[in-house]
Amino acid sequence: MAVDFASRHPMSYASNEGIGMTPTHPFDNAIHLDTIDGNVRRGRTHPEWANQVGPFGGITAAVMLRAIETQPDRIGEPLALTVNFTAPIADGDFDISLRAARTNRTNQHWIAELSQDGAVTTTATAVFGVRRGTWASTEAHPPTAPPPEQLIPGGPSPSDFIAWGRRYDMRFVEGAFPGEHAQPKRSSMSTLWMRDSAQRPVDYPALAALCDTFYPRVFLRRGGLIPSGTTSLTTYFHADQQQLDALGGDYVLGTAHANRFSGGYFDQSAQLWTRDRALLATSHQIVYFKG
Amino acid sequence: MAVDFASRHPMSYASNEGIGMTPTHPFDNAIHLDTIDGNVRRGRTHPEWANQVGPFGGITAAVMLRAIETQPDRIGEPLALTVNFTAPIADGDFDISLRAARTNRTNQHWIAELSQDGAVTTTATAVFGVRRGTWASTEAHPPTAPPPEQLIPGGPSPSDFIAWGRRYDMRFVEGAFPGEHAQPKRSSMSTLWMRDSAQRPVDYPALAALCDTFYPRVFLRRGGLIPSGTTSLTTYFHADQQQLDALGGDYVLGTAHANRFSGGYFDQSAQLWTRDRALLATSHQIVYFKG
Repeated sequence: MAVDFASRHPMSYASNEGIGMTPTHPFDNAIHLDTIDGNVRRGRTHPEWANQVGPFGGITAAVMLRAIETQPDRIGEPLALTVNFTAPIADGDFDISLRAARTNRTNQHWIAELSQDGAVTTTATAVFGVRRGTWASTEAHPPTAPPPEQLIPGGPSPSDFIAWGRRYDMRFVEGAFPGEHAQPKRSSMSTLWMRDSAQRPVDYPALAALCDTFYPRVFLRRGGLIPSGTTSLTTYFHADQQQLDALGGDYVLGTAHANRFSGGYFDQSAQLWTRDRALLATSHQIVYFKG
Repeated sequence: MAVDFASRHPMSYASNEGIGMTPTHPFDNAIHLDTIDGNVRRGRTHPEWANQVGPFGGITAAVMLRAIETQPDRIGEPLALTVNFTAPIADGDFDISLRAARTNRTNQHWIAELSQDGAVTTTATAVFGVRRGTWASTEAHPPTAPPPEQLIPGGPSPSDFIAWGRRYDMRFVEGAFPGEHAQPKRSSMSTLWMRDSAQRPVDYPALAALCDTFYPRVFLRRGGLIPSGTTSLTTYFHADQQQLDALGGDYVLGTAHANRFSGGYFDQSAQLWTRDRALLATSHQIVYFKG
């Protein structure tokens, strides 16, 4: 499905907005939005970002965040984003409705809903705010890892099963994607270097997507591909724009682990680090699984 | 302010609903809601739960969750709750509007907004769902701690400063509330046993509140009371009803730590455990701070 540009005269928002170019990078295509009215943006799914059912959750998180970024009255940078995956997104167009539930002097609270044919498939809340110079400390420690250049990509990979896996160059340090004859592991921890395959610079939507690249931790514990999907995802953005600018399209070091599996659900927590030990984001999700 | 019961004929919801008693426990008072219409519940603040500004965030999280529980068409038990604290709640009445954004066969996604005089002070999303018998494993480990009976309550405590602190019996193992001449610490970790002072049995709203009892981690790192407040709080509920029934009003072992402080915000993550090493909930928040 394509948007009828002629009849709707939408304004286009993408990272190259305003210079009259068609976005060409898969990530820019995926987060490209047209303005339907002041509070509604229209996007569409892209086969490059397909998951087993519907699109990669990370790209949905990215497009929800991007929709808020396109609001002219938006204050500051993303601080927190919660995305609830309420139903599969079908191939084709979707509308994102936006509402600033509260605007304060230095922060703003958003509610966003993604719908198709009037049915809500995704809800989100986001906090944007102005970062200030304050006392600062990173208390967490990055995982130990050799530099990405010393790791060879290869072995079983999400890209063997799903289109979006090919959008990232993933180099596992620990907890690689389980292969055909994988055994259950005692730890659900994965640590890996990853970057956009086309080295598109990391902005906040890209950071939101990176936080959801960790395949479901139940795969490691059960030693195989278990039907599962993220139900709710929360990300805290620690990086300011200057840190993102310094990162560019370089590798980030990601680590993720689960805490408890029971009753058909488990939680997993992730961190994203730069080479120079800056904690870019912490992210948490609750995941549905079968069996 | 009091609700005009005579003119509105509200239905009452509280943990002793239907037996014609006035709720007497402070927690039951705080989460007591009247039905204004099918999608609106009315509650009110209570001085017992006052924080420095507005009510304790945990009691607000509890009342948001309780409001959803009172919906007759609600499916299953709480799985995930995100609460965004958008503005201080003033003393007095508040209305909570509820909407099921999506109802699936075994889960349901809710959006809730708490407002006063038409202005939104709190937004929330929640996932409720039916837990199923599946493979289960708790991968996280509880912190090492002596039994609560071997710890003496005392020393500086949140209850010296805020009313709601007296609603809990807190016995610190590590990272006690900093006193008047406290020094900055290198670790933001706190571990403590805690229970409701009146030993009210723990239900999901009480669990939601317990997850927010950890004072801001910046206090430990800076060695004093720093102006700060939770901006967004996400809790994943791992306990099923049977586990809550087994817990009753007993102590839970809580632990919390921060990951990164910068730009006027930090994140902290918490876990709540039973004596017999059941992980009841994991909880995360992003907190605003000054200085």
